[in-house]
Amino acid sequence: MNLACPIPIEDYPVVTLAHGGGGRLMRQLVGKLFATAFDNEWLREQHDGAVLPGPDMPGALPVLTTDSFVVWPRWFPGGDIGELAVCGTVNDLAMCGAVPRHLTCSFVIEEGLAIEELWRVVQSMARTAAAAGVEIVTGDTKVVDRGKADGLFINTAGLGWVEPGREARPARIEPGDVILVSGDVGRHGIAVLGARGELGIETSVMSDCQPLNAQTRGLIEAGIDVHCLRDATRGGLASALVELCQTRGVDLSIDETLVPVHPEVAGASELLGLDPLYIANEGRFLAIVPREQADEALAILHRIAPDDGAAICGHVGPTSTRPRVHCMGFTGVERILDLLSGEQLPRIC
Amino acid sequence: MNLACPIPIEDYPVVTLAHGGGGRLMRQLVGKLFATAFDNEWLREQHDGAVLPGPDMPGALPVLTTDSFVVWPRWFPGGDIGELAVCGTVNDLAMCGAVPRHLTCSFVIEEGLAIEELWRVVQSMARTAAAAGVEIVTGDTKVVDRGKADGLFINTAGLGWVEPGREARPARIEPGDVILVSGDVGRHGIAVLGARGELGIETSVMSDCQPLNAQTRGLIEAGIDVHCLRDATRGGLASALVELCQTRGVDLSIDETLVPVHPEVAGASELLGLDPLYIANEGRFLAIVPREQADEALAILHRIAPDDGAAICGHVGPTSTRPRVHCMGFTGVERILDLLSGEQLPRIC
Repeated sequence: MNLACPIPIEDYPVVTLAHGGGGRLMRQLVGKLFATAFDNEWLREQHDGAVLPGPDMPGALPVLTTDSFVVWPRWFPGGDIGELAVCGTVNDLAMCGAVPRHLTCSFVIEEGLAIEELWRVVQSMARTAAAAGVEIVTGDTKVVDRGKADGLFINTAGLGWVEPGREARPARIEPGDVILVSGDVGRHGIAVLGARGELGIETSVMSDCQPLNAQTRGLIEAGIDVHCLRDATRGGLASALVELCQTRGVDLSIDETLVPVHPEVAGASELLGLDPLYIANEGRFLAIVPREQADEALAILHRIAPDDGAAICGHVGPTSTRPRVHCMGFTGVERILDLLSGEQLPRIC
Repeated sequence: MNLACPIPIEDYPVVTLAHGGGGRLMRQLVGKLFATAFDNEWLREQHDGAVLPGPDMPGALPVLTTDSFVVWPRWFPGGDIGELAVCGTVNDLAMCGAVPRHLTCSFVIEEGLAIEELWRVVQSMARTAAAAGVEIVTGDTKVVDRGKADGLFINTAGLGWVEPGREARPARIEPGDVILVSGDVGRHGIAVLGARGELGIETSVMSDCQPLNAQTRGLIEAGIDVHCLRDATRGGLASALVELCQTRGVDLSIDETLVPVHPEVAGASELLGLDPLYIANEGRFLAIVPREQADEALAILHRIAPDDGAAICGHVGPTSTRPRVHCMGFTGVERILDLLSGEQLPRIC
């Protein structure tokens, strides 16, 4: 799908305050732009919310999540804010073990945003939603005056379903489990930095931004008893590991030499003094599985996403009242991974 | 609940970019501020989403909705952005006939917002959620650099449940149905204008901001066959009526003399040249019910919300390919209500 923008540019080249006012212009924006791109029965009903079907899987439990997206710039190699907004919420549901089904979508728009750009964002969201197998069923639009936002912020919330007993959650992590990473890390952060012109070098690195539900459900439906899943977004792989170790109260050990990093990501990181383990990803996750199923899980990830380069990179140590993440480095020296105080790269998602 | 802010002001008086970075400071913000205020088992689990219980009512269908809030100023007589953010989403679920249950909450914060103010907002959200009988189970926080947002934007999404056959929706509106308004209109818009200092007069008008689910479920559970519900937010009562008439393809008739308006709201409106029928509300709704149940519905609304002043104000006319809202005015002259192009008052919610 790559239709021309349904709102004639000569009429409204940019979003005005009136587009967020609940009147005729907002109705046009919602009816022409959003309902055209996301077309489905719930949007056509034009109500305050969407009454949805229950789960396909009998007895499944609802899973709810939300994310806001403020990434700058909005377009970067391998993705854009719209694709990110769909993937982020689909992936949060996937990380609970759930099948993502329905998304909400809410825009905060700065007066003056080009309608044509909004249309491109919305089309990108529609394409990504179709690829992930979800529908965008209800939404909201607010417009703020010039200078009071930065072009476009998007919130998505998502509803999915998980079979009881198949939830992936930190509490199910067990000593002896094996840690897999679903692919090479650091692409998203480097791609966005490149788009900001902050690298000082040319790079062909593309963001890893993608829906992860095919991979996570592939594991679960093949019978892998997935204990925990966590996408390695803001703060990167290292922060995800630290959070899990603290939430569950177990030591974790990883071997840095086993974590795949694309040579261009490694090169750019070295140049900028960044640690790839802390660089944001938008299409990579950690899977923590029983030791005896680790090889099978790895084979499944390789089959579903052959280009990502999943790897076994560590294991779960003993429970601890002062849990830590041990990282064996390239020099054979072990270091402790901790949370950074903030993030190396603001507005990365 | 009115606890002292759990993050010592001397350490972090304002939100910094690092509070949105996925590192230690964000964990502190989420763990101390949000988890303290919204405390529940899902937040304590610190996962990417919340695995929730299914419906209390067997066979109930999930209902999903979302709203973003950019109201300015953030504090106004009778409410604040946090209360609004909870009420708005609770009410959108209520308008589908649903029992609201679980909310998500996502903040986009401008660097420099006082932590103390954020804490007050979060406490207000917690109080409102408790009053509405919902829990805030998962969330997200993004921080953008100074000048790239206007202090604080909040998104909430909500999950509720409705018994099949009890959905309230535009498609169920029937010719002959009676239209009720749940109370006097125009308070919210006038209260916010007053807080902006744009009235030029003193007024004691308070926003009508409140959760409406007790009223809507009161109707449904008393056996009223509620055909449609619609809260009269942006664009006011008139815009809500026009939307419903266009969506369903029926004429609607209201009598302006039957729509309650507080004398101070009427006075301020006249002074400013505003039409109370188009002024935003945040705690008023239209209920469209079968004629034979209209008096009972009115009595129920009077019992549940005695101070609001619900009234029967019109009826549903015939189906039409060019549906219109007819409004009988104070002078005995009929006018047609249409959508305004935008909104009289930007950033009202």
